Amino acid sequence: MVDILFAGTGASVPSRERSLPCIAVRMNRDVILFDCGEGSQRQIMISPLSFMRIKAIFVSHLHGDHLLGIPGLLQTMSMSGRRDEILLVGPEGFKGSVDRLMESCGGDLDYDVDIIEASGGDTFVFKEFVVRAFDVKHSVTALGFVFEENARPGKFDKAKAQSLGLAPGPDFSRLQNGETVNGVRPEDVIGPVRTGRKIVYSGDTVRCQRISDMAKDADVLIHEATYSHKDISLAREHMHSTSHDAAQTAKEANVSVLIVTHMSNRYDDLTVIENECREIFQNSMVARDLMMFTVR
Amino acid sequence: MVDILFAGTGASVPSRERSLPCIAVRMNRDVILFDCGEGSQRQIMISPLSFMRIKAIFVSHLHGDHLLGIPGLLQTMSMSGRRDEILLVGPEGFKGSVDRLMESCGGDLDYDVDIIEASGGDTFVFKEFVVRAFDVKHSVTALGFVFEENARPGKFDKAKAQSLGLAPGPDFSRLQNGETVNGVRPEDVIGPVRTGRKIVYSGDTVRCQRISDMAKDADVLIHEATYSHKDISLAREHMHSTSHDAAQTAKEANVSVLIVTHMSNRYDDLTVIENECREIFQNSMVARDLMMFTVR
Repeated sequence: MVDILFAGTGASVPSRERSLPCIAVRMNRDVILFDCGEGSQRQIMISPLSFMRIKAIFVSHLHGDHLLGIPGLLQTMSMSGRRDEILLVGPEGFKGSVDRLMESCGGDLDYDVDIIEASGGDTFVFKEFVVRAFDVKHSVTALGFVFEENARPGKFDKAKAQSLGLAPGPDFSRLQNGETVNGVRPEDVIGPVRTGRKIVYSGDTVRCQRISDMAKDADVLIHEATYSHKDISLAREHMHSTSHDAAQTAKEANVSVLIVTHMSNRYDDLTVIENECREIFQNSMVARDLMMFTVR
Repeated sequence: MVDILFAGTGASVPSRERSLPCIAVRMNRDVILFDCGEGSQRQIMISPLSFMRIKAIFVSHLHGDHLLGIPGLLQTMSMSGRRDEILLVGPEGFKGSVDRLMESCGGDLDYDVDIIEASGGDTFVFKEFVVRAFDVKHSVTALGFVFEENARPGKFDKAKAQSLGLAPGPDFSRLQNGETVNGVRPEDVIGPVRTGRKIVYSGDTVRCQRISDMAKDADVLIHEATYSHKDISLAREHMHSTSHDAAQTAKEANVSVLIVTHMSNRYDDLTVIENECREIFQNSMVARDLMMFTVR
């Protein structure tokens, strides 16, 4: 099971409907966060996810709306009994930011915090998936992230193996380990390697070729769309994306689904943004706070 | 009009129902905050109050749950067009905390922030009210605050003044300025000075005589009750109050209403806390998030 929780889908200023940026990916029992704006801990409490299962937090850039939820979340986990280390990843300067946040509020924790300043190309390996950082283009140094489930072996056709005279047990194990057994080759009974599910998060960025490259054939592209296409000049000025920017990237990358987030609070009716995305890429949707999306 | 908004009524760990500590007092067009935990800006957005009218934030002590909402709120006000100075008041070390919070997230603001480290006895004068800080007893240096509306002149009995032969206009003004006019003394037609409404906020504290003294005859005492009386040993260990501590203080102070807040998330049913308070002080209630209380 891979689920995405859109914990906060607003931009730099929240609204009644939208909390500050935070997206959680849950794979089986592990949860990771992409960005952690103010209020993220409570949004996760309200959701079906457990904040105690967060293994790592990946921060796209050092603007307050993307990281001010970190100290409160870390303290809450400590007071709730967490003793396992947590990994925090962000761009250059991130360690200083986190240190200052924790010092500001006497934040002693009962577990270790491993803070890493990452650059584009860095990869973080978990048990069942990896996360890769890549550079995007914003008003400050900014990263996007790829979540990629580990590839799984091809499907083993037991009925066919038995029809070819092999018995369950040691013969099957040898085939699965790549050996030919009594003239039956692994590829005769085992399907192609199954690539893992892939989710790509843009962070805050202008339209950027690297995102299309990194998101190639992804299951889900989560791309910021701070502005409507009608406000393209504001988007360029503030180094954010429009609906069309996000949709064009999704189209080039040939992703299965585009989910846009980080919409400015100037828009009351986000069907405008959704419709603009669909003019270019049909399978688009606008994220809502606390929306859960299951990646099949 | 004096209203109290209970923006966040949880303790150090929030819950689905309760955000982190923040209490707003609105007098006519001005709003002040007592504490500003993570998520306060969005709680205020959801309430009928305008976050743009906040004149000052008073922070009781330097634990994260009482101040981590400051940087996001300050940035949101700046991005929303605020240009008026804001006053921030907290105990010793507060300036360093706020500076670190703002540095952590590149927080440039388009208005000035006046940060004052207060001690018990310090008074802050606004147009229509004052706020006084007083010392309470917690695990770190901690303050409580008194909000007190300016006294208003006594009620002028126009009908009686006219029956005594005086005419509206200059005669009335002279009486209101304390002069005797044609043998009519001010006290003949003007009632006693009306004392202003008074609200007292305990912050985090053990039971403390000074709160009873400061809250003498207050309209509202907002007192922490982190624990049920049944958990008195935990309250003593962590230097917090129980329901009975809060109610005993309210009784000694002869306040009109006790509203308890900062309840631990260990309690699902807070009628227990409310009933415990009422065993000692009948006019008690437990605050709920987003509750508005009008002080008549």
